[in-house]
Amino acid sequence: MKEATLKQIATQLGVSITTVSKALKNYPDVSEKTKKKIVDLAIKLNYTPNSFAVNLRTKESKIIGVIIPTVDYNFFSKVFKGVLEEAEKRKYQVIILRSNEKLEVEKKQIELLLNKRVDGIIMSLSNETGDFNHIKNIIKHKTPLVLFDKIAKLVNCSKVAINDRKAAYDAVNYLIKKGHKKIAHFRGSYMPQNSIDRFLGYKKALEDNNIVYDPSLVYLCDNNTDFEDGYENAKKILMEHPDIEAIFAITDLVAVGIIKYFNDIDLKIPAQIAVFGFCNSFMSEIITPKLTTIDQPGFEIGNRAASILFDEIDLKKKNKPVIFQSIELETKIIERDSA
Amino acid sequence: MKEATLKQIATQLGVSITTVSKALKNYPDVSEKTKKKIVDLAIKLNYTPNSFAVNLRTKESKIIGVIIPTVDYNFFSKVFKGVLEEAEKRKYQVIILRSNEKLEVEKKQIELLLNKRVDGIIMSLSNETGDFNHIKNIIKHKTPLVLFDKIAKLVNCSKVAINDRKAAYDAVNYLIKKGHKKIAHFRGSYMPQNSIDRFLGYKKALEDNNIVYDPSLVYLCDNNTDFEDGYENAKKILMEHPDIEAIFAITDLVAVGIIKYFNDIDLKIPAQIAVFGFCNSFMSEIITPKLTTIDQPGFEIGNRAASILFDEIDLKKKNKPVIFQSIELETKIIERDSA
Repeated sequence: MKEATLKQIATQLGVSITTVSKALKNYPDVSEKTKKKIVDLAIKLNYTPNSFAVNLRTKESKIIGVIIPTVDYNFFSKVFKGVLEEAEKRKYQVIILRSNEKLEVEKKQIELLLNKRVDGIIMSLSNETGDFNHIKNIIKHKTPLVLFDKIAKLVNCSKVAINDRKAAYDAVNYLIKKGHKKIAHFRGSYMPQNSIDRFLGYKKALEDNNIVYDPSLVYLCDNNTDFEDGYENAKKILMEHPDIEAIFAITDLVAVGIIKYFNDIDLKIPAQIAVFGFCNSFMSEIITPKLTTIDQPGFEIGNRAASILFDEIDLKKKNKPVIFQSIELETKIIERDSA
Repeated sequence: MKEATLKQIATQLGVSITTVSKALKNYPDVSEKTKKKIVDLAIKLNYTPNSFAVNLRTKESKIIGVIIPTVDYNFFSKVFKGVLEEAEKRKYQVIILRSNEKLEVEKKQIELLLNKRVDGIIMSLSNETGDFNHIKNIIKHKTPLVLFDKIAKLVNCSKVAINDRKAAYDAVNYLIKKGHKKIAHFRGSYMPQNSIDRFLGYKKALEDNNIVYDPSLVYLCDNNTDFEDGYENAKKILMEHPDIEAIFAITDLVAVGIIKYFNDIDLKIPAQIAVFGFCNSFMSEIITPKLTTIDQPGFEIGNRAASILFDEIDLKKKNKPVIFQSIELETKIIERDSA
């Protein structure tokens, strides 16, 4: 079937092409009666407006790009849901790309999105991202950018995150108040800001409670396979520190790996050892014992990031100045059975 | 910063605009030396090719659309990962939309994608989708379409799914071989083909084993909140059929809801009652007891659907005929501890 053109519709109804075009864009200066006739025929003829041509004129793509490190985690699903919900409201579409936690892939994805002239970009940095020139390049291109979760403090743009340091501090403080002294931290990679901040929160809570920080109690989970990292390090810590009392894990998935190992060897949680997670993902509710964790509001993070981005796109369109925002969303402890 | 144009690059290097354009597209008829000079300057000047202009000429967007019913389930994450992996290889980008299991939203999303002139669409139908005119409209628009998981047998396009009837048959047969006779089915909505087929597989397995089908043992889970549906119906079935021996659930998430309720009331699984899931999602491994389930290869489904779609896009571009494929991927029983 050949596609209908504006001209065809105009000819068939004996009106001008401009009238057809205006009617299809719902301009007020075409009568409702004419509008209805035109729209009905357009539907009948299967007319599709050529968005790319529209794009050239308005310089808008009505598409935003979202770059996430991985599609595996419940957290990013929640974020994505938050982004989608706002995008649906504001009539934007979302291209989703993943960096696979790799700097080189992240660079390539940004380039792709800029080439595609998306109206804006929302992203969480990969674990490898330590310099930010490719991120700054987005800003140089005057493409609105909002960072979330794994952000770069040095990049001048809007950001939506939680206070990772405070959240981690609260978690470790909770473990200490429960009577634990020998508390390990299963930390994330060295690069991401949130991983650094969670580690610093852990350390500060120990210090504020007069517990000497012992670096040998910090285990690195940086294989991008949190579950296995948690499982393997749980095995290791029981050999190296059989008297360990509690573990604060960088993510729920690491915590679930830990619990899985302890369940496998019949170590009682929390009687013999306490486990604290981070995220409040769906699985933290269904595992036995149910995981005590930090609620990281993924949906709100995505929703807020999208809302800020669309506002910045609007301001840019109107040539109005944009003031960048750094939003810090509240976290809270979800008390369950593992600690 | 003003963006560089092809002309600017051409003037600065004293070559023609055509040469610059060809160099940036890596055409073989520009010398490597000239190519390098042009590419270097383009990078220095922050040149971004205007993809939308390119689109008008090539009529390609290099974007495909994926419509999924919901972003909540592990299954769709796996499918999406499979799609992304193939898209990255073939240098396509992916717009992802969700229908929220609503027919009206699904119609709107299709319209958006067709307006955006995506090169192709991959989709799984919503639970409400009973007539298929909007799906057929995609084909009328000559936009390649691949359906997966919740497919419409009546729509003439390529499809990737599993044999839901056989998989369900295998599951119920497994329960019967374990000695169970009074077996319930927690089924999905009435509309989706896969929900119908899983129900028919359940029924057939009973019949083939001379067990009389009892409609009062079939419970409907159609609130799009599988976990709660499973939990609530588990509560209900124990009141209505206290002697029930086993439950075959339409999804892992329903099964996890069932297990959650039985754990809450300390009913022993599988000693007092067996539970069988469907999907083999991550949570089926971490719940206690671990869930016996059907492995539904989500990654392969997405990967295969994308691969077929890109092939069809290529054939269309070359004006070659497309032969639609119906791919049925293998499933298998994952024996764990719940049955």
